[in-house]
Amino acid sequence: MPKRHVMNSADAIVAEALEGFELSQAGKVRWNRDPSYIVRADHARNSKVGILSGGGSGHEPLHIGFVGKGMLDAAVPGVVFASPSAAQIAAATAAVDTGNGVVQIVKNYTGDVMNFEIGAALAKDRGVRVEAIIVDDDLATSSDDADGPGRRGTTGTVIVEKLCGAAAEMGQDVSTIVALGKRLVSETRSLSLALAPCTHPGHGKPSFDLPDDQVEFGVGIHGERGTGRHPFANAHDLVASLVSPLKASLGLHRGDRVLAIVNGLGSTHLLELNLAYREFHYLLSAAGISVERSLVGSFVTALDMSGLSVTLTRIDDDLLNLWDAPVTTYALTW
Amino acid sequence: MPKRHVMNSADAIVAEALEGFELSQAGKVRWNRDPSYIVRADHARNSKVGILSGGGSGHEPLHIGFVGKGMLDAAVPGVVFASPSAAQIAAATAAVDTGNGVVQIVKNYTGDVMNFEIGAALAKDRGVRVEAIIVDDDLATSSDDADGPGRRGTTGTVIVEKLCGAAAEMGQDVSTIVALGKRLVSETRSLSLALAPCTHPGHGKPSFDLPDDQVEFGVGIHGERGTGRHPFANAHDLVASLVSPLKASLGLHRGDRVLAIVNGLGSTHLLELNLAYREFHYLLSAAGISVERSLVGSFVTALDMSGLSVTLTRIDDDLLNLWDAPVTTYALTW
Repeated sequence: MPKRHVMNSADAIVAEALEGFELSQAGKVRWNRDPSYIVRADHARNSKVGILSGGGSGHEPLHIGFVGKGMLDAAVPGVVFASPSAAQIAAATAAVDTGNGVVQIVKNYTGDVMNFEIGAALAKDRGVRVEAIIVDDDLATSSDDADGPGRRGTTGTVIVEKLCGAAAEMGQDVSTIVALGKRLVSETRSLSLALAPCTHPGHGKPSFDLPDDQVEFGVGIHGERGTGRHPFANAHDLVASLVSPLKASLGLHRGDRVLAIVNGLGSTHLLELNLAYREFHYLLSAAGISVERSLVGSFVTALDMSGLSVTLTRIDDDLLNLWDAPVTTYALTW
Repeated sequence: MPKRHVMNSADAIVAEALEGFELSQAGKVRWNRDPSYIVRADHARNSKVGILSGGGSGHEPLHIGFVGKGMLDAAVPGVVFASPSAAQIAAATAAVDTGNGVVQIVKNYTGDVMNFEIGAALAKDRGVRVEAIIVDDDLATSSDDADGPGRRGTTGTVIVEKLCGAAAEMGQDVSTIVALGKRLVSETRSLSLALAPCTHPGHGKPSFDLPDDQVEFGVGIHGERGTGRHPFANAHDLVASLVSPLKASLGLHRGDRVLAIVNGLGSTHLLELNLAYREFHYLLSAAGISVERSLVGSFVTALDMSGLSVTLTRIDDDLLNLWDAPVTTYALTW
């Protein structure tokens, strides 16, 4: 059976979803239609640094689901799997500036980085101070090629958005927040695998083929192929295949403390994500690594892809305080 | 490609997922392993009426994701799509009794109703006052057969759990909470449709076949067939086909006020759910019905089924106050 979607037309899916989100989140967020961005309803009632993110749609709840007190002031959505335009980014950047500057949190993809740069330049022309944090947590795309695009940004973005959002809420300035974000980026890595591809609305065909006895390892969040194929295995072995490279990349040792995320890529059930967290937690504990806080759920999706990603951030008490600070958004609230 | 799951074995999937949930929710909930139930970590530190629910697994976040302050004190999970045992229910009922009695919230399925009744009887033998609210919101299973099992319970359960949980937190007694629950049940209806079936972990085969140009209308949350097939259509027409019968069944008229839920059945993306909410909201508004509060997300799932349900509850200011009361659970927090 070809994959079908609940939509009126592939062209309208993002705009109509944003309109629905605004309606269901009435009083909490506002959708600026043209240029399109989601903004906190109360963003103008404070004088903190503005925190902005965005990127292609199809990854929801990222980013629109993280707009709210203690996290993002606005999120700029592109169409499915495509960067928002520089005009959207410039408008949202100006909208969330209260005179104290704006920090952009940008996933490391060529189109996003370029459009956020141009958007920042346009906002700077309007007198806004803008700096960017580039998130590049996806270990699958590590390369020795210094001239390459570098690692992609994936679920680590949630951690950067949460902690930088908290810092802004506490009144920290642009430079301090950017330094925090860069530190977080250096301490955060993610790795993903897929059991089944996703299907772009309106296309009906899966984004890649996968033999029944294989998983797509190091997969991205845009339906692209991964870095290789591993044999399908039980949850313990699948999660272990993700954890070992993460630990090595971050140089984690006995006694280190981490934030841990098990993220569903779209259609993987919470039963399976909770089970995967069990494996993740025990693998880290066995290595003497202390999981201080964790998230389990579907936060950064690739449409209806079946699979999961795991993310680790090395933390200390200061970062924990920022993590624990209050947040009120669609997808995270405490 | 056959559907595959992240698990170690089909037999262990529920227990290992519960263990993972306890680990990731450390300090918030506790998993009692044998007999198996999830309980609020702080449940014994108050003297309120205990609120208990449960049912087959595979519907997560229902019910375990609603354990916490302002909602459930405990949730009793069966294996996938099967009722928990009376022994589990009796143990959980006794565990959440602080001397002021326990209210069970039970979805109307023969096995659940029977086992919750036996569990209640066993707990009563231990001196616990127990009463039950049977939730039967699924309009697809309406029948004139007075001797039949009656309507099934589905997403309306979330509303009953939220409002009865709030009432218990406010110190209301068993009789008052049961009366509230019965009123909510009478004012709540749901209706679902599926674009693709679910697959039971370990089976690998979909729960039913569906032609490419049809949707399964009035589908349940256990992979069973629906009440009929409708042509696949755009989101507007699909949602309209659900809304009209709901409005008629509740006798909703211009000026009525409602809670509205758009619920994903498992693998339907948040983009599509937000878009479906747009249609839902405008269809209700056009009929002069005021959506006072709404939820959009995957709350009551049928494993990885593709599709959605819509739920309406007629409300007034008293019910709104209970809805707005604080809640702190995995799946709902405000």
